[in-house]
Amino acid sequence: MHLRAICTLALFLLLVETTKAADPPKQKGPTLASVLAASKAGDWRSLDPENTLYLELSAGRVVIELAPIFAPRHVANVKTLARELYFDGLAVLRCQDNYVVQWGDPEAEKPELKRKIQQAQPTLPPEFDRSLDPKIPFTRLPDGDVYAPEAGFSGGFPVARDPKTGRIWLVHCYGMVGAGRDVALDSGGGTELYVVIGHAPRHLDRNVTLLGRVVQGMELLSALPRGTGALGFYERPEQRAPIKAVRIAADVSAAERTALEVMRTEAPIFQDLIESRRNRRAEWYHLQAGRVEICNIPIPVRKPASR
Amino acid sequence: MHLRAICTLALFLLLVETTKAADPPKQKGPTLASVLAASKAGDWRSLDPENTLYLELSAGRVVIELAPIFAPRHVANVKTLARELYFDGLAVLRCQDNYVVQWGDPEAEKPELKRKIQQAQPTLPPEFDRSLDPKIPFTRLPDGDVYAPEAGFSGGFPVARDPKTGRIWLVHCYGMVGAGRDVALDSGGGTELYVVIGHAPRHLDRNVTLLGRVVQGMELLSALPRGTGALGFYERPEQRAPIKAVRIAADVSAAERTALEVMRTEAPIFQDLIESRRNRRAEWYHLQAGRVEICNIPIPVRKPASR
Repeated sequence: MHLRAICTLALFLLLVETTKAADPPKQKGPTLASVLAASKAGDWRSLDPENTLYLELSAGRVVIELAPIFAPRHVANVKTLARELYFDGLAVLRCQDNYVVQWGDPEAEKPELKRKIQQAQPTLPPEFDRSLDPKIPFTRLPDGDVYAPEAGFSGGFPVARDPKTGRIWLVHCYGMVGAGRDVALDSGGGTELYVVIGHAPRHLDRNVTLLGRVVQGMELLSALPRGTGALGFYERPEQRAPIKAVRIAADVSAAERTALEVMRTEAPIFQDLIESRRNRRAEWYHLQAGRVEICNIPIPVRKPASR
Repeated sequence: MHLRAICTLALFLLLVETTKAADPPKQKGPTLASVLAASKAGDWRSLDPENTLYLELSAGRVVIELAPIFAPRHVANVKTLARELYFDGLAVLRCQDNYVVQWGDPEAEKPELKRKIQQAQPTLPPEFDRSLDPKIPFTRLPDGDVYAPEAGFSGGFPVARDPKTGRIWLVHCYGMVGAGRDVALDSGGGTELYVVIGHAPRHLDRNVTLLGRVVQGMELLSALPRGTGALGFYERPEQRAPIKAVRIAADVSAAERTALEVMRTEAPIFQDLIESRRNRRAEWYHLQAGRVEICNIPIPVRKPASR
């Protein structure tokens, strides 16, 4: 090694050391990359085709995992609606910045023009929360929550719970899917669905029935043009993205399915993932937060390892 | 009134009453609409043209309020860069879903091609936080924060502070603008700027210098197509939205300025606004959260009342 190279290396190391000296000491531990690399096959689960919804837009497919544990009647009804092709040819009606994208029937308010419902229910009683049950897992986060006594994950969904009231509910993180309703609590049911595309609107928790989560294709919704009408509704029909179809994965041929695996939020490795988000260990980070909030934890999704 | 009309009205009132009976009692108090309606001229301030940045895209203008109290050197440097026309003709380089949009020089890594800097500094020491000062106002939120000992507002910006360390800092809510940096803490300076377009990435707080907030035109950034490269970088030059110009409002003719007023976060009425977000009083709400998190409070912006 030439002297010049040695000097350059020494200077580089000195600079690195100086930069590091300015940083507070970092917690050692897992990174997102190390968690993914260390995960075993059993840390992942395949999406259940019976509880996976495909929203087919011109731009591509949005994959939604349904949450029958938390909204059994709404999930069943959305599946019935999908199976009677209720959504096919309807449209994205609304895109409100930092809030939600919503789709449904543009003619829903016109009795003679609105899409007919066959076997499904037009509306349902709300499923805003449910009772705690030892069979329902709960991976609690350690750092508290502004909105609920406890927050964490259950079966792949962000949830909150209140041990005092014995209730547990899905929370409005980015990508969560809910059933729009009017003022009456039982005016929803799944004919209009919305997806959170901004900062978690947690004030909606327990005010509207959440029933699933987008696991792939969020960018097909979040990057839609914002509607310029009140609440982000599109003002002209041609501004609405058409819905080609909504299908249950189980009804689609195996070749046409989107094979995805989701990390089990009950697996011990998910605790490492939480820790990797509480204390970022990448060299770029100067300060580790040492804390994490429910909607800042991504639930890893991957294509299945080749079998 | 005909009997039919009376019966219809009675039925309607009964339905309303029945719906209400199912709801928990609501806190009375302000709504966003009532707060805006009750506000006086003195509850609003005009944007300071010397600390207002216009990002001019083909799709329109993004208006950014700069935060010289929190990042004086970065704000001064961005203004110098704007005044030497550094940004004109550069582009949006990156749009990562649920994270940030970032703009700068596509050729920044090529010494012979990169945009030349004249009077401005290429990099600056970080301004991640600053010391508390009695002259810096702080409107504290009552419901805590997952990431910081205290959260609230200061001069129109979301902030957090730690009385123990005597520090205060801007936080990464939706629409906040920061100066991208490499691994070295002093490698930023304002030549690359980013805006938060998703759920607040609060783990970035005090890791990167925030210097302002988008007060109008967020949808011109948040609805950009997501980049398909790593970290949301665009993979082909033609995918990048060009930057027509970046200007200081003071340098633009009065006729070409965007006149905006921002509600004073120090005004007593802002406490009513916070309360209107803690307990939603619109008829639609079934349950009032009774709590609110820093990034769920919008800071009202309006066109000036006609003078």
